[in-house]
Amino acid sequence: MRNTMVLFAFLLAGCNLKEKQTVLETSTNDPLSSWQEGPTKQAIIDFVTNTTKEGSVGFIPPADRIACFDNDGTLWSEQPLYFQFAFALDQIKVLAPQHPEWKNEQPFKALLEGDMNTALAGGEKALFEIVMATHSGITTEEFDNTVIDWMTTATHPKTGKHYNEMIFQPMVELLSYLRANGYKTFIVSGGGVDFMRPWVEHVYGIPPDQVVGSSVKLKYDTLNGRPVLIKLPEINFIDDKQGKPVGIHQHIGKRPVFTAGNSDGDYEMLQWTTTATGYPRFGMIVHHTDSVREWAYDRDSQIGRLERGLKDAAIYNWKIADMKRDWKKIYPD
Amino acid sequence: MRNTMVLFAFLLAGCNLKEKQTVLETSTNDPLSSWQEGPTKQAIIDFVTNTTKEGSVGFIPPADRIACFDNDGTLWSEQPLYFQFAFALDQIKVLAPQHPEWKNEQPFKALLEGDMNTALAGGEKALFEIVMATHSGITTEEFDNTVIDWMTTATHPKTGKHYNEMIFQPMVELLSYLRANGYKTFIVSGGGVDFMRPWVEHVYGIPPDQVVGSSVKLKYDTLNGRPVLIKLPEINFIDDKQGKPVGIHQHIGKRPVFTAGNSDGDYEMLQWTTTATGYPRFGMIVHHTDSVREWAYDRDSQIGRLERGLKDAAIYNWKIADMKRDWKKIYPD
Repeated sequence: MRNTMVLFAFLLAGCNLKEKQTVLETSTNDPLSSWQEGPTKQAIIDFVTNTTKEGSVGFIPPADRIACFDNDGTLWSEQPLYFQFAFALDQIKVLAPQHPEWKNEQPFKALLEGDMNTALAGGEKALFEIVMATHSGITTEEFDNTVIDWMTTATHPKTGKHYNEMIFQPMVELLSYLRANGYKTFIVSGGGVDFMRPWVEHVYGIPPDQVVGSSVKLKYDTLNGRPVLIKLPEINFIDDKQGKPVGIHQHIGKRPVFTAGNSDGDYEMLQWTTTATGYPRFGMIVHHTDSVREWAYDRDSQIGRLERGLKDAAIYNWKIADMKRDWKKIYPD
Repeated sequence: MRNTMVLFAFLLAGCNLKEKQTVLETSTNDPLSSWQEGPTKQAIIDFVTNTTKEGSVGFIPPADRIACFDNDGTLWSEQPLYFQFAFALDQIKVLAPQHPEWKNEQPFKALLEGDMNTALAGGEKALFEIVMATHSGITTEEFDNTVIDWMTTATHPKTGKHYNEMIFQPMVELLSYLRANGYKTFIVSGGGVDFMRPWVEHVYGIPPDQVVGSSVKLKYDTLNGRPVLIKLPEINFIDDKQGKPVGIHQHIGKRPVFTAGNSDGDYEMLQWTTTATGYPRFGMIVHHTDSVREWAYDRDSQIGRLERGLKDAAIYNWKIADMKRDWKKIYPD
């Protein structure tokens, strides 16, 4: 079950597209105008003010202002399926004509017949095959284009929005607010790094090299006389749970001072951030409590399960961003 | 032999220290004042001017101005041994009291007796044991401190300088010049990423998250109630040869437009950079031609071997920075 969830996690991540700037220009002078006044918003402002004021006890030099954000469920929605998994399912249909054998092979046969239960009955192995069929055997450039094409065309079954319109406006404001105060913002997601990079720069203002995620191994090769990188059907790194502090160290090389997540997949990243000494640290959990404007789920959810995080939030002083209570709006207009 | 060299490469990388600012303030208005006037310097200036002038045919938007630099032999010296290997050898002596068994075990016995030939007679296996004995079984924080301690105390056998004083002043100027023109500068080195990060920010102006290098696997664990990352005796990634384009993609996620290297370990990185389409590209090879002020070596050297790069430089239009001819000075004063 846990490995299955890891693989699920690997399947998925944020979403928004190059051609479209969905980040709102706020019409007020409040950089966090989509946040309700209250303790969560105040805690954010107090932390940033304290850590950026020269001479303050909690001052953090700009070079150490490292802020890490989970993506799925933290910067955008993740229900009813991680969006990267929706991408993978759509890609199976796109690729089917090139794979006549799929008509007789599970999990592809069931997927193509729209029978999700049978397809996923194969558990971890079935998930692995779906991921690898859609995320390998292709050059990195071709994969980029595939992701961008999907983002411009696919729509979410519940909202009818493009997936790239389902980012969280309050979090986009938080990213901008941190950067305006000298913080360097990173995504640290269980989702595939190659799935996120084609669009995150435009949507979140986070350049590709500041995205840490799961990945497959790559092979440097030559195709029609041109050097290419081929995505191999072999996992390179799973950036989830204990993997998040590992990914942070391997990629960023510094311990964050600010971290936001939403599920138990972010527990170790939050712990790694907020148990460090020397500087003030800020940990935040986005709690999905709004069944009307978004979704409400935590301890019992297969997607974005949040159990340990809620239990231990008080111990570590992690702030809860309660979507229903703390956010004036969910998505950009 | 090749694997041995890969392991050698893994052992080593750049060097300079936190407490000491060795980057020279230039006293002229020429940002490349340590470069002799001539075709190499002119090619650099022409490229940067052309790619940063709005409206120019070769204009590159700031987000795509990615510049990658090898470290050993490109940003600092690497003779007579990669500096990270000198660090490893010194660490064997430091760690010996905790390892009484080394008195009877090769390659440690020979190393402790100063008999390098016998120590290295064990080939790849001996090298692997030296690396892992000094680069694993330790937390990432402890390793950082060890590197910094070594940098402040160790000196180079030929120059008597601290290793952190043997960076190349013309290259430091080039890094600054590129950044002043909106380029984001990265190190992409076969050396260990954890060996480079504690000091590169101060010396080269390159923050830790913009350093791509070789690494061991890490384990997230708890030590005396504190979360730690333990460096494991298992290679995670070798950032050399074909590994360099792979490391660039996994870490940076964009194809560079500017790359500098000095050895055949940089061949694929140069090729990956300069065969890309869409923008102008610049590839440069630092050629070690100055036996008086530094070292002179290329095709026949075990360290920093440069054979394919010289042979194919004209095909790919890679510029040669000839140290003797093109550099007014080698090290900062």
